[in-house]
Amino acid sequence: MSAEVLVVALGGNAIKQADERGTTEEQFHNVDVTTKQIAKIAKAGYRLVVTHGNGPQAGALLIQQEECEHLVPGQTLAVCGAMTQGQIGWMMQNRLAYHLMREGVEAAICTVVTQVEVSDQDPDFQDPSKPVGPFYSREEALHLAEEKAYVVKEVKPGMEKSWRRVVPSPEPMDIVEKESINDLLNGGVIVIASGGGGIPVKKNGDGSYSGVEAVIDKDRAGFKLAQAVQADKFLILTDVEKVYLNFNKPGQKALDRLSVAEAESYEEQGHFLAGSMGPKIEAAIRFVKWSGKEAIITSLDKALEAVAGNTGTHITP
Amino acid sequence: MSAEVLVVALGGNAIKQADERGTTEEQFHNVDVTTKQIAKIAKAGYRLVVTHGNGPQAGALLIQQEECEHLVPGQTLAVCGAMTQGQIGWMMQNRLAYHLMREGVEAAICTVVTQVEVSDQDPDFQDPSKPVGPFYSREEALHLAEEKAYVVKEVKPGMEKSWRRVVPSPEPMDIVEKESINDLLNGGVIVIASGGGGIPVKKNGDGSYSGVEAVIDKDRAGFKLAQAVQADKFLILTDVEKVYLNFNKPGQKALDRLSVAEAESYEEQGHFLAGSMGPKIEAAIRFVKWSGKEAIITSLDKALEAVAGNTGTHITP
Repeated sequence: MSAEVLVVALGGNAIKQADERGTTEEQFHNVDVTTKQIAKIAKAGYRLVVTHGNGPQAGALLIQQEECEHLVPGQTLAVCGAMTQGQIGWMMQNRLAYHLMREGVEAAICTVVTQVEVSDQDPDFQDPSKPVGPFYSREEALHLAEEKAYVVKEVKPGMEKSWRRVVPSPEPMDIVEKESINDLLNGGVIVIASGGGGIPVKKNGDGSYSGVEAVIDKDRAGFKLAQAVQADKFLILTDVEKVYLNFNKPGQKALDRLSVAEAESYEEQGHFLAGSMGPKIEAAIRFVKWSGKEAIITSLDKALEAVAGNTGTHITP
Repeated sequence: MSAEVLVVALGGNAIKQADERGTTEEQFHNVDVTTKQIAKIAKAGYRLVVTHGNGPQAGALLIQQEECEHLVPGQTLAVCGAMTQGQIGWMMQNRLAYHLMREGVEAAICTVVTQVEVSDQDPDFQDPSKPVGPFYSREEALHLAEEKAYVVKEVKPGMEKSWRRVVPSPEPMDIVEKESINDLLNGGVIVIASGGGGIPVKKNGDGSYSGVEAVIDKDRAGFKLAQAVQADKFLILTDVEKVYLNFNKPGQKALDRLSVAEAESYEEQGHFLAGSMGPKIEAAIRFVKWSGKEAIITSLDKALEAVAGNTGTHITP
C-alpha cells in the first residue's frame, strides 16, 4: 500500500451543477457522486487532502445578504468564505464517510476551517479581477459602487445585466493552519481544507491576522496546500477528461502527457482560457516545478483511472 | 504544568451581544474579548476544547433565506448549523491565535466541523420545543405552517409578533468526529468543536448519517463533547458570575459550591429557568455524575478566577 500524499482540487460541478438552483438536496446528490470517486482513490492507498471551490455557495450568500441588509447585516467576504467551508466541508465529510465505509477503508475525516495568508500589497488590490455575487444593470452597478464603495466592471457586454462586483484575487502565500492539517494527515485522517481558496487574511503589525475583502483562486491555493503537506501528486478535477490544444476549434487535440516546458509554451501561445483551464495549468506547472513529481488534470468520473495513469493529462518535469 | 483537559462551553454573549445588530466587526470584537480569557486558561496549563452557541447567527441566516427564497433556495437547518460552525469557528481561531501568541502559549488551533448523532425516535420530534428564526404574527405563522409544514407556536403572548417556528431539540447521543477531535487534542492542538450544539444527524439503515431538521441544546452537546474527550473539567460560561437560588426574587442567594444531590434538589424545586440556567445546571450534573469531577458555571470575565477556584459555582460529587 502506497503512502503517497495526494491533494485533490475539486471543480465547481463537484458540488453544484451550473443548471441547478442549488438546493440542499441537489448539492448532496453531487457531493455523493464526488465523494464516491474520492473514496476509491483512498482505497487505492493514497493519503488524501481534499480542497474545493465555493463560487455558487458564496454567490448565494452575497445575494441573500444584499437583499436583506435592512433586516440583518451582511458579513464580509472572509466570513462568507468561512461559512461556505463549514457548509461544503460538512456535506463532503458526511458522504465521504459513507463511501469509505462501503469501500472498507477505515479513516476518520476532518474538515479544517482554513485561513490563507495574502499580502495587501498584492497588485490585484489595485486592479481587482475576480467577479463575485449577482449580475447588475449598469445603473444598479454604479449605484452600488457609490453606496458601498464596490469596484464594479462590465463582464458580459450585451446582456441586460452585464455588470458585476469585482474583488481582488491576490496570490496565496501561506496556509495558516498547515500544522493542524499535517498533524491530522500524519494521524491517518483524510483532511478537507482550504475550501473556496481559503479565508483570505493579511498579517498585521501585531502578529495577528485579519480578513480581507478578496477571493483567492482555488487552484492556486490548492498548490499552496499541496506544498504545505509535501504532496506527491496534485489532482485537479474539472469537467473535461483531458486538457486540449485548440479547444473547441479546428485542430483540437487532447494532451496525455506533457512536460513543464511544453505546458508553459502552450500557455504562452494562449491555448488555455483565463478563469477556466488557465489557472489549473498554472497551478499544475507550479506544483511540478516545486516538487518534481506529477500533476494530473482530468474529470471527476475519470479520477481513479487518471491516478492509475490510464487517462487524463499528466504534467511532469 | 497540568495536563488536565478542560471543555469550555461559551454562551451567546461570547459572540454577539443581545443589543447588537451582529455586524462582522461587532462579532469580532466580542470574540476578541472571549478568546483573551480562553488564552489565559490555556496559559494556566489546560488542554482545551471550546464549544459555542450559534442562535443569533443561525437566526440571521434563516431570515435571509426566507426573504430570498424566490432568488436562491434556502438550505436545511443542518446546513445552516454547518455554516455557522465555519463562521464562528473562524472568528474564534483567528483571535485566539493572537491572544495565545501574546500569552506566549505555543499551540495550534483547529475548528472541527462536527456532526452530533440524535435519534429520530426522540420524543421531541413529536412535540418540538426549540424556537428558531424570526418572530411572526399569528397570520404569518399559520400561513408558514401550511406552506412549509413548519410547526409554529405562540412564544411571547401579548407581543404583536408573538409566534415562532419551533423545531425538535433531541438528546445528543454521540459526537461523530470524536476520533479527529481526540487526535488533535492529543497532538497539543486547541480544538473548537460542536458549535451550535453540533450538526444534528441521524444514522440510516445503510450506516450513513443524514441531517435532520432539529437544533441540539449546546450545553447538552457540550457534555457529550466533554465525555468524548474524557474531560477533567467542564466550564460553562454565561452572563452571571454565579448560579443563584431565588434569582431576581426575595431571598436571592449565590451558590459557591454544591453537590450533585443539592443541585438536583434545587432543580426540582424550580430554581433554574428552562432555556436559561436550567440546561446549564442539567449539563453540569450529567458531567459530574459521569466523571466524578468538577463542573463550573461562571461569567466570561471571571473564567480564569473560577477555574482557579476563587469564584463561580462549582458542582462536585
